[in-house]
Amino acid sequence: MNKLLIVGTVAFDAIETPFGKTDKILGGAGTYIGLSASQLNVNSAIVSVVGGDFPQEYLDLLTAKNIDISGIEVVKEGKTFFWSGRYHNDMNSRDTLETQLNVLADFNPVVPANFTDSDVVMLGNLHPLIQTSVLNQLTAKPKLVVLDTMNFWMDCALPELLDVIKRVDVITINDEEARQLSGEYSLVKAAAKIHTMGPEFVVIKKGEHGALLFHNENVFFAPALPLKEVFDPTGAGDTFAGGFSGYIAQSENISFDNMKNAIIYGSTLASFCVEKFGTERMENLTSDEVKARLQQFKALTHYDIELTK
Amino acid sequence: MNKLLIVGTVAFDAIETPFGKTDKILGGAGTYIGLSASQLNVNSAIVSVVGGDFPQEYLDLLTAKNIDISGIEVVKEGKTFFWSGRYHNDMNSRDTLETQLNVLADFNPVVPANFTDSDVVMLGNLHPLIQTSVLNQLTAKPKLVVLDTMNFWMDCALPELLDVIKRVDVITINDEEARQLSGEYSLVKAAAKIHTMGPEFVVIKKGEHGALLFHNENVFFAPALPLKEVFDPTGAGDTFAGGFSGYIAQSENISFDNMKNAIIYGSTLASFCVEKFGTERMENLTSDEVKARLQQFKALTHYDIELTK
Repeated sequence: MNKLLIVGTVAFDAIETPFGKTDKILGGAGTYIGLSASQLNVNSAIVSVVGGDFPQEYLDLLTAKNIDISGIEVVKEGKTFFWSGRYHNDMNSRDTLETQLNVLADFNPVVPANFTDSDVVMLGNLHPLIQTSVLNQLTAKPKLVVLDTMNFWMDCALPELLDVIKRVDVITINDEEARQLSGEYSLVKAAAKIHTMGPEFVVIKKGEHGALLFHNENVFFAPALPLKEVFDPTGAGDTFAGGFSGYIAQSENISFDNMKNAIIYGSTLASFCVEKFGTERMENLTSDEVKARLQQFKALTHYDIELTK
Repeated sequence: MNKLLIVGTVAFDAIETPFGKTDKILGGAGTYIGLSASQLNVNSAIVSVVGGDFPQEYLDLLTAKNIDISGIEVVKEGKTFFWSGRYHNDMNSRDTLETQLNVLADFNPVVPANFTDSDVVMLGNLHPLIQTSVLNQLTAKPKLVVLDTMNFWMDCALPELLDVIKRVDVITINDEEARQLSGEYSLVKAAAKIHTMGPEFVVIKKGEHGALLFHNENVFFAPALPLKEVFDPTGAGDTFAGGFSGYIAQSENISFDNMKNAIIYGSTLASFCVEKFGTERMENLTSDEVKARLQQFKALTHYDIELTK
């Protein structure tokens, strides 16, 4: 089975949406990526750090999903990374209410020995120096390295971010971040500029408006599934990244055509994530539900226009 | 050849975008719909009104596109409807600088006798009483009636708008208008509510984010083509409506599956409209260019994921 190495936060979240609010619940990019990728036939491991306050049951949940957690360091005397946020009524924007870095402040990632030759590496949103450190520990060149990041690192660690971007095959960012990183408003121009920074493939996430995949002159678009309600958008982007990288790892095919499928797979999984608070929906998701929704995506996007007349 | 009846403004526009500004140029919903539908094999007519100041060359242009203009009344002593607007830098919003109704204020549409049995009727954005008057003049039930409208009529003529909406098969509105008309934020819920107002088919236009087609529980999504530059968005929605209704009229098929194709055709034509100021691009568009772009749409949206594993 192909190896997928994931680096990302494993954390506590507290979330407020127009539908309600949660106490401290399981969250973090690494968690969402791992849960999402566990829908695929891959051998995955998460590299992360938590504090002594992190419940064993959360770690057990990841293990039950066949995720190797030997790379999740537990700092007994430390506290787990905590984020709380409040979504606005349109669910497209949010305010961060509190961020406690805690054990993340001194995190030194250690890749488990049996994952230094991973086939696919998914660098979740974290300080670019942590992402670089993971790449430096690899003993064999992966088939594909995917990087997710956000505007925060563009603001406060741009040189380090540009260094790690040079070394990845795929970057996934949202539309505003693509504009900030490139200085271009047009997403077509933004993707072209980001290509020159390193990544051969540029994925631009537009939330409820879908996602674009650019590869030189080629472009592919996947919509988000129109939903009656978006209950909680937290983790949707990470779930997308987990589905994308998991699909590539499972299929061992890094062609543009197969990446289209990976984008659809990621979008499909993300459409579940937003249906309930936090990781709840992803924890209980079955493969039959995923298959049914892939069919829904097909119906949503497929047409058969006559091109000759 | 099937008959397509179009009602809509034929007008002067003055447009400012970040790329420049125009003097008074040819504009109006009826104009854009007609030019767009002229790409299809249909027998079309425009019902509208202009003033004595309207240049003969503009009327000749429509005639040259095989559009019947006998339903365009010329009020010699009157002035043509004029709109001017300025787009913001993101091209997604605009300010109206000036609106002169002029001859439109007393417009009584008269459907040419040979078009009272039209196969498809495209009611462009106008006062709902004008749209109703056109429907009242029909002597045979059309295969399909499509209505386009905007928030302005929801604000100032809602009862009249609801009356005409009851009588149409397809409504095309943008996302904000769908929310206003239905009182629902979720577009899925908005479409469901608008179904109950009459239209079996609800098309929600999201500008650069594409368009959704709803038919009861069925939904289809067409993206907008990602472009390096959007030069001038004026008329894009009307061009979409012209391509959509023209495609249906040409193919004589009002199934949901064929409506998907019509949406793609409309999106394709709209992607040309925004490339130059006003109607310029649509005036010189060739069928080979349209075919090539339909292929681009296919590449943009087509994927072939394995659903059984």
